[in-house]
Amino acid sequence: MFSVITSPHNQTLKTIRRLQRKRERSRTGLFVAEGEDLVAAAAAAGFEPEASLVAGEDVEPALLAQVSALGSGARAVGVYRQRWSEPGGAVSVYLHAVGDPGNVGTVLRAAHALCDGPVVLGPRCADPFSPKAVRASMGSVFARPPARARLDELAGTAVALDRDGELELADAGDALAGVGADSVVLCLGSERDGLPRDLLARARLTVRVPLRPDGPDSLNVAMAATVALYELAVRRPAAGADGNRMAGRA
Amino acid sequence: MFSVITSPHNQTLKTIRRLQRKRERSRTGLFVAEGEDLVAAAAAAGFEPEASLVAGEDVEPALLAQVSALGSGARAVGVYRQRWSEPGGAVSVYLHAVGDPGNVGTVLRAAHALCDGPVVLGPRCADPFSPKAVRASMGSVFARPPARARLDELAGTAVALDRDGELELADAGDALAGVGADSVVLCLGSERDGLPRDLLARARLTVRVPLRPDGPDSLNVAMAATVALYELAVRRPAAGADGNRMAGRA
Repeated sequence: MFSVITSPHNQTLKTIRRLQRKRERSRTGLFVAEGEDLVAAAAAAGFEPEASLVAGEDVEPALLAQVSALGSGARAVGVYRQRWSEPGGAVSVYLHAVGDPGNVGTVLRAAHALCDGPVVLGPRCADPFSPKAVRASMGSVFARPPARARLDELAGTAVALDRDGELELADAGDALAGVGADSVVLCLGSERDGLPRDLLARARLTVRVPLRPDGPDSLNVAMAATVALYELAVRRPAAGADGNRMAGRA
Repeated sequence: MFSVITSPHNQTLKTIRRLQRKRERSRTGLFVAEGEDLVAAAAAAGFEPEASLVAGEDVEPALLAQVSALGSGARAVGVYRQRWSEPGGAVSVYLHAVGDPGNVGTVLRAAHALCDGPVVLGPRCADPFSPKAVRASMGSVFARPPARARLDELAGTAVALDRDGELELADAGDALAGVGADSVVLCLGSERDGLPRDLLARARLTVRVPLRPDGPDSLNVAMAATVALYELAVRRPAAGADGNRMAGRA
């Protein structure tokens, strides 16, 4: 048996603290999950921890709290090796310059709940293995690891979600059937900047979520992605025709 | 002209700091918005600040940073009087025991974007005027103030969103037309606990968002509310019949 860690100079504690920094995560290929729910999600997805600490069993609770990036007083912390998916799937998501880690994590979760493909991270996105992104994903970063690519490396029909999109989202299913799209890459940028012009030009369709005229003029990227993935999952004519609405593949 | 505040004992700074506490917000009926975007949203919605501070103009930036609840280094902070809406609208949202202020704020924003009624806060919800909720609302707390009531005080047809709901969300529009519902109250609980049994029993319909079998078994309350409000806005037959999909009122 190992003894309970009582020194802040313990090597595992130092590793966990260093992994708060993106540079250290990139250098080592490791990341940290804080909290019993996330540690359980990792195990359920077949991730073996490189190291793990449970407050009161392996380490004094106050020392574990000191290395928390989230200040959440997590009772369990695990260190894991990053995994990346290959792009693919009948429906996947491509994010361009979405810099907020909470939004990246929430989109990971929305994709896990509503489509079969991964979230593909393009340039200038937040690190999906940052503490905030991992927490916002609520474990989906383990169950459906993100991918990395540029849009022009992806197969499938690009559909850009944009506040000035030509079509209402509700009409996207028919339009996609009309162009014979059998796999769809839903593309989103940040709420503030949207998608760059060259990326919009490369999309087969540009669609918008209809918003009330007396409301905000955009949704944040996580809400917009969730609504669009729901719409694609439920309404694509071919997917709905056999009653298997969640099958997704047209 | 007033001079720049250089003392941490300044009364306005003390007020701002005290308003981080719910008890103080309840006692005074005031709340704080941090950041230029939120201060602008308040002005756009006709809120006159009880006090406001701009870093470098009214106050030393370091002093303003010290009273920030969000640690965001906001350059502008305003103190406002809370406003509450009356329940109503063709579509409104009722939250039961949603304790996370970020989720409450995000639902405020979703309702502002997608329906005409307010978010009605039932028992044990997070304070919508807490710093995190105000920030997550991105100004919608000003443009569409929340309401407070118990579900049995509300007019309209209660529709409960629940992971075990009888109907898929996509079928809610037809079902609502079938029962002649002319105003709808969408009811949600927290992701972990859902809605209590007596509230589910009081709902006219219980609906679920269809999720992939290989995904998480629920969505967080903000994502679920956003999807459901989108569905109700776009698909209710009477609202769609005249081509004015966002009119909402059946």
